[in-house]
Amino acid sequence: MEAHLDVTIALLERTPTALNAMLRGLPDSLTRSNEGGETWSPFDVVGHLIHADLADWMPRARWILEFGESEPFPPFDRNGHKQMTQGKSLAQLLDEFTEVRAEKLNDLRSLNLQLEDFARCGRHPALGSATLAQLIATWAAHDLNHVHQISRIMAFQYRGAVGPWQKYLGVMHCNGHGASA
Amino acid sequence: MEAHLDVTIALLERTPTALNAMLRGLPDSLTRSNEGGETWSPFDVVGHLIHADLADWMPRARWILEFGESEPFPPFDRNGHKQMTQGKSLAQLLDEFTEVRAEKLNDLRSLNLQLEDFARCGRHPALGSATLAQLIATWAAHDLNHVHQISRIMAFQYRGAVGPWQKYLGVMHCNGHGASA
Repeated sequence: MEAHLDVTIALLERTPTALNAMLRGLPDSLTRSNEGGETWSPFDVVGHLIHADLADWMPRARWILEFGESEPFPPFDRNGHKQMTQGKSLAQLLDEFTEVRAEKLNDLRSLNLQLEDFARCGRHPALGSATLAQLIATWAAHDLNHVHQISRIMAFQYRGAVGPWQKYLGVMHCNGHGASA
Repeated sequence: MEAHLDVTIALLERTPTALNAMLRGLPDSLTRSNEGGETWSPFDVVGHLIHADLADWMPRARWILEFGESEPFPPFDRNGHKQMTQGKSLAQLLDEFTEVRAEKLNDLRSLNLQLEDFARCGRHPALGSATLAQLIATWAAHDLNHVHQISRIMAFQYRGAVGPWQKYLGVMHCNGHGASA
């Protein structure tokens, strides 16, 4: 379990740097454009990742350790980032994500989790019983889910420009497969 | 068109740095594992990106400028990276990708393309007529296609660990939507 945790922390540490490398300095035509309607832009996704670090993962980990299954997790607002990101630049959000992520990983390490802690259960308001190990694994998988989404949103902006190659580019046929954690 | 080219080059420049940030130093359990059967690992994908830079994008751009539609592009071997990557480490491939990409973008800039060049047509062996502008746009979209794929392959390794959250993680329900450019 500790080995798994090390790998998961290694993934979680890399996400702000990876998004910084992918996005910083690109024009708004790529970073502030979405896939139509109420879908998210890469800017929105970075805002959501910050908000989830603040309001979802570590708060829920502490919730499990404090309340177990006796109380469900407080609900997480998938649009909670909207107010927080207003008036900010993408560069500001990327800086903020780097800081918040480092801080939250320090919090995780400082819990000094023992083998038996990983098996402790909490209660998700919709999904039911889930362990602390599953919550922490989902934190990393959720990052990957959103890297997957950001690459898809940016590829969407190229759907006309690639002409006949659209057919061969799987990313342009991806619809996101539903909601997020 | 020149503005489009600047954005596309900005995307292409970022990919080696982004993959470096995402992948370097992660354990083989993440970077050398695939999605089962003959599917690719992140290591294979980086190899494919190097091979495509060497054998696909810029060679085809020069082919269009030299032969137009008179000769179809020579076919590109989607498994051409396999021999090239044998015995190498992921760190070596990431270094190689950084070098090859920088070199190929220098080649692209040195073509000093004019507005009328972008409309010049080549002939894809399966897709038919395609312009130089479409080829260059596809180079960048193909990067995004493979970032999309790498995030999906790594998320796949977490499919058991996330327990009930699997349902909410779109990336775990993505099948890649077919082939690549």
